Amino acid sequence: MPDSHSTGDATIDLARAERCGFPEVVYGPGKRPETIAEIFAAQQQHGQACLATRVDPAQVAAVRAKFPEAIANEVARTVRLLPPGESEVPRGFVAVLTAGTTDLAVAEEAVETLRWMNTHVELIVDVGVAGPQRLLEAKPRFVNADAVVVAAGMEGALPSVVGGHVACPVIAVPTSVGYGAAFGGIAALLGMLNSCASNVTVVNIDAGFKAGYVAGLIARRAAGDA
Amino acid sequence: MPDSHSTGDATIDLARAERCGFPEVVYGPGKRPETIAEIFAAQQQHGQACLATRVDPAQVAAVRAKFPEAIANEVARTVRLLPPGESEVPRGFVAVLTAGTTDLAVAEEAVETLRWMNTHVELIVDVGVAGPQRLLEAKPRFVNADAVVVAAGMEGALPSVVGGHVACPVIAVPTSVGYGAAFGGIAALLGMLNSCASNVTVVNIDAGFKAGYVAGLIARRAAGDA
Amino acid sequence: MPDSHSTGDATIDLARAERCGFPEVVYGPGKRPETIAEIFAAQQQHGQACLATRVDPAQVAAVRAKFPEAIANEVARTVRLLPPGESEVPRGFVAVLTAGTTDLAVAEEAVETLRWMNTHVELIVDVGVAGPQRLLEAKPRFVNADAVVVAAGMEGALPSVVGGHVACPVIAVPTSVGYGAAFGGIAALLGMLNSCASNVTVVNIDAGFKAGYVAGLIARRAAGDA
Amino acid sequence: MPDSHSTGDATIDLARAERCGFPEVVYGPGKRPETIAEIFAAQQQHGQACLATRVDPAQVAAVRAKFPEAIANEVARTVRLLPPGESEVPRGFVAVLTAGTTDLAVAEEAVETLRWMNTHVELIVDVGVAGPQRLLEAKPRFVNADAVVVAAGMEGALPSVVGGHVACPVIAVPTSVGYGAAFGGIAALLGMLNSCASNVTVVNIDAGFKAGYVAGLIARRAAGDA
Amino acid sequence: MPDSHSTGDATIDLARAERCGFPEVVYGPGKRPETIAEIFAAQQQHGQACLATRVDPAQVAAVRAKFPEAIANEVARTVRLLPPGESEVPRGFVAVLTAGTTDLAVAEEAVETLRWMNTHVELIVDVGVAGPQRLLEAKPRFVNADAVVVAAGMEGALPSVVGGHVACPVIAVPTSVGYGAAFGGIAALLGMLNSCASNVTVVNIDAGFKAGYVAGLIARRAAGDA
Amino acid sequence: MPDSHSTGDATIDLARAERCGFPEVVYGPGKRPETIAEIFAAQQQHGQACLATRVDPAQVAAVRAKFPEAIANEVARTVRLLPPGESEVPRGFVAVLTAGTTDLAVAEEAVETLRWMNTHVELIVDVGVAGPQRLLEAKPRFVNADAVVVAAGMEGALPSVVGGHVACPVIAVPTSVGYGAAFGGIAALLGMLNSCASNVTVVNIDAGFKAGYVAGLIARRAAGDA
Amino acid sequence: MPDSHSTGDATIDLARAERCGFPEVVYGPGKRPETIAEIFAAQQQHGQACLATRVDPAQVAAVRAKFPEAIANEVARTVRLLPPGESEVPRGFVAVLTAGTTDLAVAEEAVETLRWMNTHVELIVDVGVAGPQRLLEAKPRFVNADAVVVAAGMEGALPSVVGGHVACPVIAVPTSVGYGAAFGGIAALLGMLNSCASNVTVVNIDAGFKAGYVAGLIARRAAGDA
Amino acid sequence: MPDSHSTGDATIDLARAERCGFPEVVYGPGKRPETIAEIFAAQQQHGQACLATRVDPAQVAAVRAKFPEAIANEVARTVRLLPPGESEVPRGFVAVLTAGTTDLAVAEEAVETLRWMNTHVELIVDVGVAGPQRLLEAKPRFVNADAVVVAAGMEGALPSVVGGHVACPVIAVPTSVGYGAAFGGIAALLGMLNSCASNVTVVNIDAGFKAGYVAGLIARRAAGDA
Repeated sequence: MPDSHSTGDATIDLARAERCGFPEVVYGPGKRPETIAEIFAAQQQHGQACLATRVDPAQVAAVRAKFPEAIANEVARTVRLLPPGESEVPRGFVAVLTAGTTDLAVAEEAVETLRWMNTHVELIVDVGVAGPQRLLEAKPRFVNADAVVVAAGMEGALPSVVGGHVACPVIAVPTSVGYGAAFGGIAALLGMLNSCASNVTVVNIDAGFKAGYVAGLIARRAAGDA
Repeated sequence: MPDSHSTGDATIDLARAERCGFPEVVYGPGKRPETIAEIFAAQQQHGQACLATRVDPAQVAAVRAKFPEAIANEVARTVRLLPPGESEVPRGFVAVLTAGTTDLAVAEEAVETLRWMNTHVELIVDVGVAGPQRLLEAKPRFVNADAVVVAAGMEGALPSVVGGHVACPVIAVPTSVGYGAAFGGIAALLGMLNSCASNVTVVNIDAGFKAGYVAGLIARRAAGDA
Repeated sequence: MPDSHSTGDATIDLARAERCGFPEVVYGPGKRPETIAEIFAAQQQHGQACLATRVDPAQVAAVRAKFPEAIANEVARTVRLLPPGESEVPRGFVAVLTAGTTDLAVAEEAVETLRWMNTHVELIVDVGVAGPQRLLEAKPRFVNADAVVVAAGMEGALPSVVGGHVACPVIAVPTSVGYGAAFGGIAALLGMLNSCASNVTVVNIDAGFKAGYVAGLIARRAAGDA
Repeated sequence: MPDSHSTGDATIDLARAERCGFPEVVYGPGKRPETIAEIFAAQQQHGQACLATRVDPAQVAAVRAKFPEAIANEVARTVRLLPPGESEVPRGFVAVLTAGTTDLAVAEEAVETLRWMNTHVELIVDVGVAGPQRLLEAKPRFVNADAVVVAAGMEGALPSVVGGHVACPVIAVPTSVGYGAAFGGIAALLGMLNSCASNVTVVNIDAGFKAGYVAGLIARRAAGDA
Repeated sequence: MPDSHSTGDATIDLARAERCGFPEVVYGPGKRPETIAEIFAAQQQHGQACLATRVDPAQVAAVRAKFPEAIANEVARTVRLLPPGESEVPRGFVAVLTAGTTDLAVAEEAVETLRWMNTHVELIVDVGVAGPQRLLEAKPRFVNADAVVVAAGMEGALPSVVGGHVACPVIAVPTSVGYGAAFGGIAALLGMLNSCASNVTVVNIDAGFKAGYVAGLIARRAAGDA
Repeated sequence: MPDSHSTGDATIDLARAERCGFPEVVYGPGKRPETIAEIFAAQQQHGQACLATRVDPAQVAAVRAKFPEAIANEVARTVRLLPPGESEVPRGFVAVLTAGTTDLAVAEEAVETLRWMNTHVELIVDVGVAGPQRLLEAKPRFVNADAVVVAAGMEGALPSVVGGHVACPVIAVPTSVGYGAAFGGIAALLGMLNSCASNVTVVNIDAGFKAGYVAGLIARRAAGDA
Repeated sequence: MPDSHSTGDATIDLARAERCGFPEVVYGPGKRPETIAEIFAAQQQHGQACLATRVDPAQVAAVRAKFPEAIANEVARTVRLLPPGESEVPRGFVAVLTAGTTDLAVAEEAVETLRWMNTHVELIVDVGVAGPQRLLEAKPRFVNADAVVVAAGMEGALPSVVGGHVACPVIAVPTSVGYGAAFGGIAALLGMLNSCASNVTVVNIDAGFKAGYVAGLIARRAAGDA
Repeated sequence: MPDSHSTGDATIDLARAERCGFPEVVYGPGKRPETIAEIFAAQQQHGQACLATRVDPAQVAAVRAKFPEAIANEVARTVRLLPPGESEVPRGFVAVLTAGTTDLAVAEEAVETLRWMNTHVELIVDVGVAGPQRLLEAKPRFVNADAVVVAAGMEGALPSVVGGHVACPVIAVPTSVGYGAAFGGIAALLGMLNSCASNVTVVNIDAGFKAGYVAGLIARRAAGDA
């Protein structure tokens, strides 16, 4: 198997799966639609699952023209392919929580990433701190996860509260939801970095993919697959 | 009664009590110890209660030399005098909460301010969000307050959580507690400004006096004294 | 009565009125027009007044299709419904001031919130500090309020000046009005946080709803309704 | 067993171990030396291992007066106690890397945290990107870890480079090492948040404890102990 | 006359007076005490008045050893000499106002600069906006000035208010007075830059010398001396 | 004469001319075109010159429909009217310099303001520091001004250089010209505030009107008109 | 030869080539298309090569109408002309590297600048640190350069890594590529300024022209042409 | 020859000279005095020149105890050793300029670095833009340099002005000199990054070593030694 495959405007790293555990993921912005389809074809040929993030409708259409079975998620702005062959049973368990409904796009990007990693996912939305009873009601659905992803904008307080309820790592992803002194996610980012809960770690603003990816790596190891 | 009284390095506004409901408060830094004692004497002569904030030991000593009955609070860095004459029954009720023990100095400044305003105060410390059961246990002690002051550093999440439990205004005061990306209270300040709870309003970093003062004004009105 | 009511894309907290004194308010952005109308219907069924903020014309139209009596305010970008049944007499008194005419949208959002809370409101516009006589002329209209909301952009100096004239809390709301070093409201926000007037507290940039809400809570208590 | 134990200036959460997997950790600053010793005694009585971070010499001395077997680390500014009874075999494996020698204090705090969690640790220092051969030589020592902690100041580039070599999560901890536009760790923090490597997640500036704690949680799960 | 005079660690520009209207001013920090005395001697030899700012006691002592008639101002941290020969009548009129007493050091630096420029100065302290009647009482003392310098920290609102009362330029100088979100004078600086009064212009934080200098240039021209 | 005149959406301060030396200036954004025309009419009736800044074409058209003699400047985005009656001879002299050609809009706003104030103006463009001979060639045209306005973006170095060549105040106006780390004028603003030239004072980013206005006040006084 | 040539809206510095080694370069934004064509004509008349940066299609078309041989680069947004007469052999050698494919526009601007300077250029794209083997493979292509330009966004780590492999200066150019805490290039800029490699120097965000220009000056000197 | 030499608290890279053209330089802070002496001994043994930066007196003393011929520079805070054997003739020419006298420490660090690189250096101090004739007088001393280092604080305007006078690269080094809105060198840094002169490139605040090092690399190549 070659280590890489070159298209017109990208060089795909086919050896990534071996070195880092998972194949390379395609970041959509700036790529021609056909390029993404071509990358997917090369990855499928080598038995790899495929994922592209932040894709636009034209990019999704190009992938679907070649692979009608492609799974697109409009809210998450992702498109992906299962690995060729029989599908395996999901392994490991990650819960993805959002503080509000407007954090959903970021959370869905994490969810799709986890599905691509073949991880069991539980999505729990709209359990922000202003309505405290909502989180407690949802607790049974996330307390046994191997890792929890929490997407929150505005003051970004939810990861700290969740952190006090679980024994696993919490991957906090600040979202750019809010206005005024939310500063496009900076307020939430700072809040999460300063979390008083010891098990909270942070990724970039709106980085649903990275949050899902790290949570997936943790779940995979917890499932004994490292 | 004259409207003002001039000392060597300050002009005290004796008409403030009439115009704004409470006498002027002395901000200690930069003032000579005797000046503060002299201001207190002038205010007492006009029947006013006295409060000085951010005072150092020398300033406290100067006040005590003249007024042995002065009430000093080392943690709060305040010194105050009751109004001359018979003491009245406290009116209105404010709860003051802290997220951690290091927020105590700021909270005590709020408490002393409220005592000077003759308000009933309940101080509840160390109920931060990382240990969620602590706040629920303390809820009966603050749920009926006319206003709640919440002092918190680091990610400043406590006011949002408290806001979801009460029907009164929450005065959030960010503290400079924390390190790294806490940026001396900026993270907490931004978190509080972006609180998803509708009843949270904010004062300056470490501004225990102002938080207590605004809460006291609210309690006074609730008690029918406006 | 159930505690909550679920629509397609939101879960409305019907118990909020009991827990926090007022029903939940709908934040418009990102919600489908019919969702807002449906929430209003559920709230009316339970005898609650309704308010939606930052609504667009399509959202207003959907509400009006179902409730022709809905009160929309284009400048404030709000739509609201009175509680079903006989209307009560307004209780408590809040004054809302603006520094300039461009601060009006934020001030109107506060005004509509206060009307929804059944509070008496006085709106006083364009009394910024550059023309000092204007505020003095308007003083009789706001000096007896239970709380004053002040919306100001640019240097945000008006709340400090108002604070020196009244004995009640001043809720300062910085607006994103200005250019250059106004930085979208940061200059006004910092000015208000550092106000030398003891009775000034602050909410987020352009947060007219929150300013009105906190002021309304204060007025409600002053009226003896806590 | 009681859920908590109260000392003069702190309330220790004895139920934390059950709820979150590990006992509460003592943050030293602002606590009286005897308080820390007393907390350790209570935890030992309940069979828990003990850890205090950012301790000063007086705090260490107070612990040692009561527990001569206490393990202090001057560089890390920590002191800890093994759980009473027979020691278990370490489980799970975390590598801790530093870019330069001045990042050592932060790295050692992570190392001590991991030892307290009974995790196998490998410390690899001074493998920053300016001397590229150094990291490659060290690769065999960290490539099989369950999680890698990377402490780096200045431009904070090392986590990205490490991320490209491993299949496990990388916990990046920016340090306040540097001068000028390093801005006390902000440059490194931003660099790490924007890492092009998918497996990099971030904690607060100088937060060696939190980096170690999250890495330890991951390793614990990988070892099948979740 | 030579254009410059070189000492051990400075080169004094003796032609400055002719080119820019006033002799060069010595900035104290980092200069040896004798250097300052030597510069003063060279300037006096050429008939020039002398001013050094931000001087420490040793620097003042060195000047006084050589020139016992030197005028030192401890609050302003300045030392200066009249020009040799008969003193002229002051020309032009500048008022210097402060918001609080802690702004005095900056204001005094402006005052000393203006005296060195032989301008008539009126110093008016502690007329900040929280006590609105104080400024109105002082108005007759500054309304006819050729320029007004206003030093203010915290929210920096005073220049805007003064600007609405006068027909001359207002030179606003933000001071580093305040705490928390005052950010060492940034809040005041931004407030002044965004002043709604058309006649307000701004200098650097704590730049009393520059404020006084620009005001003095204006007054000199108004007196017909340009 | 009445002190003010109210239109639909503005209240014009007719007494401003007497109090502050010049009539009120209309800030265009957000005002209806007819409102501006109506304000101009009221001012003309009282013998005042008129100026509106940041106007759009519709606003200019509305003014011209009523006053065909109106003077519009597309680059400056201004429209103005001479005072009714015989025109007076310009008094005082201000030079307006720009560093580059893209700073011209800001400079022209200053120029139009100065013409409205009946001041003699000299506009000198594109004399930035990268081509050092250009400023020296232009020096005779500005060296005798009563005040110099300098508009510059990017690093904003020109005011410092100009300040070393003149004996009058320099009003520096940073422009939002530039990209990347110019941060919309912040780099230029900071450069100007830290100018090593004693005679440089600063206004807000892109504030051509304010720079011109302050320069005009200085020139007016220099001409003996205070 | 005249020193300058004036068009309608620009003054071209024809003496620049002699004073600074290369002719003036035209910055496109804000200039009329014909102006650029006219400047090119004047420069060609004086035997100079021509370069315009950040040009739009209309500007390119205007140049091509007059000079059909003009070389336009759509990605770089440049258009240029060789000097009239016989072309010389390129002298000096600069390598231009990019971290990702989205950094290409900035890199191409550097490349075009270097071609205009008649320097030999090697462009190497997509060798960012996440795939470490890619840079090592490309090393032979850049290790002997006289200077290396490195364009990188996000965390901007590539220049540090490249700096450890070469003995020549590295000109780092941060790009605005990234999202969230990339802050439009600030993260990359700070990373590069704090590079632990001694030979890394930095230009403005997206400043491909300046990076290429400085590298070209170095290469020119290395080729003995200073 | 071995590639590295390990001391107690550092690993010196002896192969650096071959890979990068010059030996490794020792950064003093945090190193034990004897460590520095030991590193110098190892480097001398391999025929290398030695340089340590930001050293304190104890570190200098330790080096001098072993190498009495060591050259220490108190202002620059450096200590260095010539390479063993006969000294070579300096090659290449770099000019180092400062805007003010307080920038000297940074400039001297650059100078010592250049001497260690065996480059001819010309140091020109106190030629800031406020006294424009000073730079013109000094021009003959720097106009023929292979590279110019310019150290400046406050507004950092000098590099732009120098850039317009020379045909070689200008390495701008912002210094932390200044107060208020100088923000510890940020104002100068931003000014230099936005320089309108094409030949200006920038290093970190106070980074005299790096500025000197890059300039030395350029001069070395210009001298034909690459």
